[in-house]
Amino acid sequence: MGPRLSTDERLASVVGRSPSIATLCSHSSLQIFHGARIEGLGAIGLCVGEPPRFYDAFPLARPDRFLSVPRVRDLPTLESPLRDAGAVIVPHGSFVEYLGPEAFGALDVPVFGNRAVLGWESDREKEREWLEAAGVPMPNRYADASEVDGPVIVKYYGAKGGKGFFLAKNREALADFHPTGPYVIQEYVLGTRYYMHFFYSPISDGGYRVGTGSLELLGMDRRDEANIDELYKLGAQEELLRAGLRPTFVVTGNVPVILRESLLPKAFEVAARIVEKSIELFGGMVGPFCVEGIMTEELEYKVFEISTRIVAGTNLFVSGSPYSDLIAPDLSTGRRIAQELKHARAAGRLAEVLS
Amino acid sequence: MGPRLSTDERLASVVGRSPSIATLCSHSSLQIFHGARIEGLGAIGLCVGEPPRFYDAFPLARPDRFLSVPRVRDLPTLESPLRDAGAVIVPHGSFVEYLGPEAFGALDVPVFGNRAVLGWESDREKEREWLEAAGVPMPNRYADASEVDGPVIVKYYGAKGGKGFFLAKNREALADFHPTGPYVIQEYVLGTRYYMHFFYSPISDGGYRVGTGSLELLGMDRRDEANIDELYKLGAQEELLRAGLRPTFVVTGNVPVILRESLLPKAFEVAARIVEKSIELFGGMVGPFCVEGIMTEELEYKVFEISTRIVAGTNLFVSGSPYSDLIAPDLSTGRRIAQELKHARAAGRLAEVLS
Amino acid sequence: MGPRLSTDERLASVVGRSPSIATLCSHSSLQIFHGARIEGLGAIGLCVGEPPRFYDAFPLARPDRFLSVPRVRDLPTLESPLRDAGAVIVPHGSFVEYLGPEAFGALDVPVFGNRAVLGWESDREKEREWLEAAGVPMPNRYADASEVDGPVIVKYYGAKGGKGFFLAKNREALADFHPTGPYVIQEYVLGTRYYMHFFYSPISDGGYRVGTGSLELLGMDRRDEANIDELYKLGAQEELLRAGLRPTFVVTGNVPVILRESLLPKAFEVAARIVEKSIELFGGMVGPFCVEGIMTEELEYKVFEISTRIVAGTNLFVSGSPYSDLIAPDLSTGRRIAQELKHARAAGRLAEVLS
Repeated sequence: MGPRLSTDERLASVVGRSPSIATLCSHSSLQIFHGARIEGLGAIGLCVGEPPRFYDAFPLARPDRFLSVPRVRDLPTLESPLRDAGAVIVPHGSFVEYLGPEAFGALDVPVFGNRAVLGWESDREKEREWLEAAGVPMPNRYADASEVDGPVIVKYYGAKGGKGFFLAKNREALADFHPTGPYVIQEYVLGTRYYMHFFYSPISDGGYRVGTGSLELLGMDRRDEANIDELYKLGAQEELLRAGLRPTFVVTGNVPVILRESLLPKAFEVAARIVEKSIELFGGMVGPFCVEGIMTEELEYKVFEISTRIVAGTNLFVSGSPYSDLIAPDLSTGRRIAQELKHARAAGRLAEVLS
Repeated sequence: MGPRLSTDERLASVVGRSPSIATLCSHSSLQIFHGARIEGLGAIGLCVGEPPRFYDAFPLARPDRFLSVPRVRDLPTLESPLRDAGAVIVPHGSFVEYLGPEAFGALDVPVFGNRAVLGWESDREKEREWLEAAGVPMPNRYADASEVDGPVIVKYYGAKGGKGFFLAKNREALADFHPTGPYVIQEYVLGTRYYMHFFYSPISDGGYRVGTGSLELLGMDRRDEANIDELYKLGAQEELLRAGLRPTFVVTGNVPVILRESLLPKAFEVAARIVEKSIELFGGMVGPFCVEGIMTEELEYKVFEISTRIVAGTNLFVSGSPYSDLIAPDLSTGRRIAQELKHARAAGRLAEVLS
Repeated sequence: MGPRLSTDERLASVVGRSPSIATLCSHSSLQIFHGARIEGLGAIGLCVGEPPRFYDAFPLARPDRFLSVPRVRDLPTLESPLRDAGAVIVPHGSFVEYLGPEAFGALDVPVFGNRAVLGWESDREKEREWLEAAGVPMPNRYADASEVDGPVIVKYYGAKGGKGFFLAKNREALADFHPTGPYVIQEYVLGTRYYMHFFYSPISDGGYRVGTGSLELLGMDRRDEANIDELYKLGAQEELLRAGLRPTFVVTGNVPVILRESLLPKAFEVAARIVEKSIELFGGMVGPFCVEGIMTEELEYKVFEISTRIVAGTNLFVSGSPYSDLIAPDLSTGRRIAQELKHARAAGRLAEVLS
């Protein structure tokens, strides 16, 4: 199942007019609307039920209008009003997750970025194939517990929100793991986590060249996870497990962070290879993406995940980050998306940033 | 004991003139003076002994003048010069703590906010009564150790500065607790901490409506606590205890943080209920307050404390936070206080924000 | 071995012209070049091999030109082109470390700050002598394991990048330490770490007075260290050690932090004493330096190290920090360096800030 309209037909709805930016009212929507408004574009909030009241508290980020449906699965009924409004949908993690990658990919509304990336990101095996083909260093995977030669994290397939993980400091400790479903055993890399917010523009003609365009670094964060981040305050994990308290990894927020400058070349190389391979595999990723990994004591950066859309950690940098401040003042990822849309339109290259 | 002057008599000192903002030289005073100065109000530093030298290093936050007394308990002798200067006192945690809530509440100088809140915040039982009446989710309390069914924190009454706490991962571990005074046993909630900086304006006519006014979110932080934050680096807590090293929770600083956007509706609801109940109980809280709680892996937010004044974590956001940047540029809590005073004065509604 | 030219001869290259700022392309170079450009000074990137590509991604921080050499040890061959360009070298940690303090100190190019500080900072014994003479509280040192009366950290001489440390929670635990080379036993102070970014200007005539000039606080950070920062997530350290996993302390990045305002007087006093003693010992430190220490539960600040140059933690504050925002808007340490150079030049006092 895919969209019924051809890309050209879909994009016709935004040609010759100033586009509006539409997204689901959650995740990073405040920042996306704020960016649209600064750049003089319209902002449309999509919501299930009543518009969230909290927008009233943020006058600079409030969308111009809301389009509401009774249930998530009714969102596709907004296709026609969205096209009429000249809307471009900006995907974010919650939007795609709530609607499902298939239904999202079938929306007959112009989407910012290449919707083909959905099939590669939502499938862990395909994502790994992509990253490995790009030569990105990743944590090992073990086909069997007997191969384990260091600390590991065991993840059940489909484990939601950071629950259902099992940590083992070595093969011996893994003996306590009694699987209740299909799982994967992954190397647990020791180090510090960096979530790097990149932006790839296929139409930019300056900057750090990758493919036909340029690669930008807009910010960096670290995720807050409950309960693992503060669990240690209560005692040793081994003792807590005995008391029935297990570590969980549910994302609750974000803190700002920067990386040693001498590691930036490595970070850009990894991100560039991911973009280059995406061009080869499916016509390229466009716009924001996040490279999520661990810097080890050997200063190796192991990537455990990528997000091919705006991530919530960018919400820290509504008015710029220590990285984007070196590009332009007050540049958030949300604002950068709006700029890209304007640049593409001015250059008559909308088809390269929309799908 | 209360103030001798009536509210009207006290407020007469600021009517018909541009008020100055006065506070004790500590806690969040740099930010408060900085905000006053940006908004064109006078700034008066109250100090015990010589004015702190460090103000010399911060020219944009230096008060216009200082009023000094030899001892903390002499601060009330400044009442008359403060009224003569058209001063409004901005309370902060150290100001009220040093002077004592009773002496502070009896000051015959206009105070920003409702001084009636002092009696509700400084008494833990009354604070809990207020929050429970507001329907705010809080950690459980156990009347007796035999009821304990999970991890707990035991706090001695009057334990100062985060010392004298005892953590136990379960009822068994609590057996090692040998009380040396009156104490309370509280559920130890596992998760990540968020200190949310709200502001309630009873006179604002837009925004997120609560009572007669509106609720704003100006920032968020997490407190740094010594030694608990870095204790784990030395070894397992159980082993450290055997070596005579106990965890302590003394606040030494703050780090910036943001919350998942999808949890903001819940955050606003909790804060709104606290404000609404305050209106019912004692005529309402006015200005900055902080909701301090833990987000669990189930994404429940349990409130362990509120501060009904500006908190030191707002010092992170002298030039705006990821939240206040969506309201107005360069908006600190200190500046917001100065703005509220100006708005109230322009609207002839000073009596609603002063006491 | 020292420079061949006299200070006067060296400084002649910048007299009567607008200086350019030169530094090695690493560490904090983006910020240094950004600051130079905002202040209208030239920016020269020194690099080994090709200029790093990542500058292309940061247009506001890209140097005007690059001077490249094939190997680090060839950097001194750039002396003459640098003098011809009217360059002032800004030292940073990587620059001095890569070239070696001796070769750096011998460069016949004007250096920002007093190069005499190199001999005092690069030698741990001399650094301790300086700080102790200044009356700065520091962690204890133990001449012998038998004297140990609390937690300690054992450091091998010349241990690089935070490896080769051994932690012991008490004297008993120290029995597991089997030295393989010369080492020093230091008190392991429990608390929270603060890295305070100060700036000393010998020519400023306002502000917080120290010596002939003034002391400024421009920011504060905490270092991220791999693997110690996230090691606890895998289990108790004692258990991990048994599994062959040792804590390491390799700096990978930085997070922003602020200190309780009531502790600022203490912070300024410590920094002021360090500056005063530097004037006495070797003619004074000039420009940025970092005081690195631990705040204990007793709110004592124990200094474990100072850096006498710009530190990488300042990279967090490219557009200002909660402290520098109280001095002037958009003030980074890099920009402050450029300002100092301009002020010194305008006042005919270059000799006081260069060496």
